[in-house]
Amino acid sequence: MPVQSATLDFVRRLLHREAIGSLKKVLAKLQPADVSDLITRCTPGERHLLITLLYVTRQAGPVLAELPDETMRQTLEGLSNDVLSRVLQEVGADDSALLLQRLPKERCAEILEKLPPAYADKIEEIFRYPPDSAGAYMNTLFLQFHYRMTAREAVDRMRAWFDTHQEPIYTLYVLEETQRLMGTVAVHKLVLAQPETMLSELIDPDPVCVNDYSSVRDAAETMVKYDYVSMPVVDDQFRLLGIITVDDMVDVMMESAAADAFQIHGVADEDRLETPVGTSLRLRLPWMLLNLMTAFIASSIVGLFEASIQQVVALATFMPIVAGLGGNTGTQSLAVIIRALALDDVDAAAARRGIVKQVLVSLMLGLAAGLITALIALLWRGNPMLGLVIFAAMVLNMLLAGFVGSAVPFLLKRLRQDPAVGGGVLVTACTDSLGFLGFLGISTIFLAYL
Amino acid sequence: MPVQSATLDFVRRLLHREAIGSLKKVLAKLQPADVSDLITRCTPGERHLLITLLYVTRQAGPVLAELPDETMRQTLEGLSNDVLSRVLQEVGADDSALLLQRLPKERCAEILEKLPPAYADKIEEIFRYPPDSAGAYMNTLFLQFHYRMTAREAVDRMRAWFDTHQEPIYTLYVLEETQRLMGTVAVHKLVLAQPETMLSELIDPDPVCVNDYSSVRDAAETMVKYDYVSMPVVDDQFRLLGIITVDDMVDVMMESAAADAFQIHGVADEDRLETPVGTSLRLRLPWMLLNLMTAFIASSIVGLFEASIQQVVALATFMPIVAGLGGNTGTQSLAVIIRALALDDVDAAAARRGIVKQVLVSLMLGLAAGLITALIALLWRGNPMLGLVIFAAMVLNMLLAGFVGSAVPFLLKRLRQDPAVGGGVLVTACTDSLGFLGFLGISTIFLAYL
Repeated sequence: MPVQSATLDFVRRLLHREAIGSLKKVLAKLQPADVSDLITRCTPGERHLLITLLYVTRQAGPVLAELPDETMRQTLEGLSNDVLSRVLQEVGADDSALLLQRLPKERCAEILEKLPPAYADKIEEIFRYPPDSAGAYMNTLFLQFHYRMTAREAVDRMRAWFDTHQEPIYTLYVLEETQRLMGTVAVHKLVLAQPETMLSELIDPDPVCVNDYSSVRDAAETMVKYDYVSMPVVDDQFRLLGIITVDDMVDVMMESAAADAFQIHGVADEDRLETPVGTSLRLRLPWMLLNLMTAFIASSIVGLFEASIQQVVALATFMPIVAGLGGNTGTQSLAVIIRALALDDVDAAAARRGIVKQVLVSLMLGLAAGLITALIALLWRGNPMLGLVIFAAMVLNMLLAGFVGSAVPFLLKRLRQDPAVGGGVLVTACTDSLGFLGFLGISTIFLAYL
Repeated sequence: MPVQSATLDFVRRLLHREAIGSLKKVLAKLQPADVSDLITRCTPGERHLLITLLYVTRQAGPVLAELPDETMRQTLEGLSNDVLSRVLQEVGADDSALLLQRLPKERCAEILEKLPPAYADKIEEIFRYPPDSAGAYMNTLFLQFHYRMTAREAVDRMRAWFDTHQEPIYTLYVLEETQRLMGTVAVHKLVLAQPETMLSELIDPDPVCVNDYSSVRDAAETMVKYDYVSMPVVDDQFRLLGIITVDDMVDVMMESAAADAFQIHGVADEDRLETPVGTSLRLRLPWMLLNLMTAFIASSIVGLFEASIQQVVALATFMPIVAGLGGNTGTQSLAVIIRALALDDVDAAAARRGIVKQVLVSLMLGLAAGLITALIALLWRGNPMLGLVIFAAMVLNMLLAGFVGSAVPFLLKRLRQDPAVGGGVLVTACTDSLGFLGFLGISTIFLAYL
């Protein structure tokens, strides 16, 4: 739901008239995500004015954190170190780390020096985590409660917190003296509790938590599985370090769901639109080489039958059809299975049924495609035997494609490999090579009649 | 994080000893998602015992709702209508609708008759929504508050609610007399408010809501964009009908992110592991025909050059390499762009940079692949001219593949088509046809030297 064009036009007109008062009112009513939308669609000049205004109204931080990568980088370049260091102090260490990572190393160091040392330390702590660990995603700006507090004291502490913070609180994290996480109290329990109740009486003990160095994908899966909106991040001594929230995890899960699908073609998770050419090249070169190897296998199978092709050159013409249809059928079966493995639980019985079904569907598609191709071959070349050979070759290859496409991911999984990575390359390698072998092999047997 | 095998073994031993008391204690400590894990890994006999036990301890409903599709269907078959109708009354109308949809039509009708009429109506209302509308996903079991209530009255109402319900409440939905949604109150505000404050004073007006018939994907995107954990569903008169929660939306977003990726190959969103063969066939047939058509175009291009192939049959042998590498390069570029379009905002400048980058990467991969292939051709066939021709053809085709693969999704988007659907078929059609045209065309020009 992007911001209405009407709003964009209105804000632009106000910007050009420099109607600061009206602008402030309009911006105050919009959510950070909406203002971020607006900024993305403004010219660089307009952007600068808007950001300056947001800085004055103390809205700049959350808006900056919502900007898409490239706009964020450009916008940050236009801000002075003084402005930026003040903005960062309003957004929390996790968002600050996110913004600072978009800057050149030296500028980042300059700004860290301008920040209060304790806060700069927190940000640098986040920098030290591997980018795909839970620690790199955690928010370190959170309220802590002690188990010997009463409900009333907890409410007072929350009241003080909301004087300077805006994010809602859904769960209280209750700690022992040693900073060890003792348990959680859902906010609604605080509503219902008598003021003198101790937090230790309201506590849900043994909360599901995640270690700071464990994979953020595992953390996201756990949150989604248990329908949590936030989850504590703890160190090895079970001390509370920060909180990860479901909105950040949604992005992680979406990227992870999409990643599986794209890895079918050997497209690495890190290969993005703005990845430098050198990095993309390094990521894709091994796949190109693998692809080249499998292409050479297919090619040498064709090479075995050069004598047949020389006699009946029409075979060369029909080769792309046999290979193309087989490749597509196999990749489709592969996609269905990979999706099932990524999104659901698949037990052995369901796997067997899945393979049988893909083979059946592919067989029927093969019968249809083979029939059509055979008819066209007959009409085009006037050779019924050529039609029959093509029919047999296509049915066989598409049957095989259905089996290979659906079996390969289960096989990779059993070998403890990621079933998604490069399955597509493997499947088309099979359908190409065995497709040519079948087609040219059958043709060679019946060569006298072609 | 599946349940530990130790827990599974322990539960099994207790089941076989029929140690009901100990079993109850173990199950009470586990989350519904964990118990669902356990059930998936049990034998049908063990399952039946477990479900009966969960029914007695009133845990069956939430556990059933968490089961994977096929296990859910099997487990429901083993329950009597009486048991099932009592379980359904514990889980809310949305989960009841989910469970009932797994049953045959007649059995579903029988069970609906056993439910209290008002509750059955609620479930049937959900059935009436299109499966991809927000209405089909909403929870109709929620607490309503009136704007003239005081904070104290709201707390009392919550207390009564929690006597019979367990799900946490994060947001209060405040209504006018006409059931129109007036606004929301975050629970933490209730904690901080004086008991006599009116809800109308605590309210956040103009909450972002979603219409019951609007697409659930749009609803999910809105929730993720604004970092909401729940969102009200309203009708055209802005009356509150239900709530959708972020945990349901995460599934929607994940499926949507994955769907884009799989549609590259023309794999429909509805084509799943357990889809009946007939449905899968119907969904895939049009793509097979499109694929056949593009394969015939490629084939007739090869047909144009049959004379050249007859003279230099090695050309047929190298055809699969030119086509295979081009197809893979194009599909990889396509995947990178589709992912960017699905997960981020891409403006015109970023699109241009993206295309240029993909062309550059593909050109360099093409130079590498062409060089290797030319060398092998030289060593295998001892023909330097053949190597040169293959080198030129591969560089050209992979350059083209990078351009087509990255430009096609932007083109489809500008034509207001889904950039993901079938892009793969289009890209390989181009790389196959133009690849053969380039390779065989250049070969024909230099035929005398081959």
